[in-house]
Amino acid sequence: MTTMTPINTIAKGTLYVVSAPSGAGKTSLLKAVLRKLPELKVSISHTTRPQRPGEQDGVDYHFIDQTTFQQMLTEHRFLEHAQVFDNFYGTSRDWLEAQLVDGHDVILEIDWQGARQVRKLMPESCGIFILPPSREELLSRLTNRGQDSDEVIARRMAAATAEMKHYDEYDYVVINDDFDIACDELAAIFTARRLRIESQKIRQHHLINNLLSDTME
Amino acid sequence: MTTMTPINTIAKGTLYVVSAPSGAGKTSLLKAVLRKLPELKVSISHTTRPQRPGEQDGVDYHFIDQTTFQQMLTEHRFLEHAQVFDNFYGTSRDWLEAQLVDGHDVILEIDWQGARQVRKLMPESCGIFILPPSREELLSRLTNRGQDSDEVIARRMAAATAEMKHYDEYDYVVINDDFDIACDELAAIFTARRLRIESQKIRQHHLINNLLSDTME
Repeated sequence: MTTMTPINTIAKGTLYVVSAPSGAGKTSLLKAVLRKLPELKVSISHTTRPQRPGEQDGVDYHFIDQTTFQQMLTEHRFLEHAQVFDNFYGTSRDWLEAQLVDGHDVILEIDWQGARQVRKLMPESCGIFILPPSREELLSRLTNRGQDSDEVIARRMAAATAEMKHYDEYDYVVINDDFDIACDELAAIFTARRLRIESQKIRQHHLINNLLSDTME
Repeated sequence: MTTMTPINTIAKGTLYVVSAPSGAGKTSLLKAVLRKLPELKVSISHTTRPQRPGEQDGVDYHFIDQTTFQQMLTEHRFLEHAQVFDNFYGTSRDWLEAQLVDGHDVILEIDWQGARQVRKLMPESCGIFILPPSREELLSRLTNRGQDSDEVIARRMAAATAEMKHYDEYDYVVINDDFDIACDELAAIFTARRLRIESQKIRQHHLINNLLSDTME
């Protein structure tokens, strides 16, 4: 990690790191936001876990074997990575850097541990944490229509709580109570970021030069 | 100025300073945004200039005499003030501070000189600059259907250019090309600000305590 160089800071796009506990509705919210703001791009992780029926390589994940993953790791080609049981997951830097340099905003859906790795390498990235509207509602969303044992549910609640404890390491917090409001709020964060002076100075420099010229063309 | 104390920094509301050259459409945009976000409040200036037909005291301005204005100035009761020809204009701190402490967001429509005074006293305020889409369009908006002399128009353009030169002292820049898009963008800035961690920690502290409790109530 310490040998990695930080990503080019003159990148025009913003990297968004979005985290949430299971049951907060992160994936559905992001899908809805992408319909409103189709210019946003979502990063696709690399994984060593087996491809499941219905999953597409390059759409759901980039499916790679353990040897390839370890080699990419050695070559510092992951911005962040994690091990879950015997499987590895990671975010490749190559595609991401190219997108940001081209001015695209990119969303990473990762947990708080991945978010910490990204924040260290790209302090200018923007973190968003999504919370459910109450503990009772979260329990209901994790209960899965009564099909699971109390023990399984308790484990899910404990994992969700452990994730939520890190909410204040993020720049923004969105509460997913009313779905449409939460969706508008997420979109507002992405929109407002592009209007910041640092971003507009680059994006609008032709217009600004035109406006500040004292003579008409 | 130097004897003034900064406003309470634990205020929950945000003070927005919105500036623009004449012809950028600031007033129409803010009116439209207020219809979308009626919880926003607009500060009403005090002025010594005479009330015009159709203007309402306490709605368009707080109309006061020179003596009262000078006394308020001596008592440091203005956050910012300006003199335009023989008339004085100022923003009273009393109402503003009360609104912010109560958690309301307040908009100030002032020029770059007033904005500088406010920024000095309230560095946590948020500045938004509105630009027209081109110099040609600005000229057309300032031309007033051919009723004015070239000299008057040239003076207006010069004043607009002088104001625009300060655009990069602000936090956000909105281009008023398509009115509806500019309106959505302004609204996004106000919405996103309320979602920042510093703000949500205070606004949502009951919910967050509930979510992070390890036992159910």
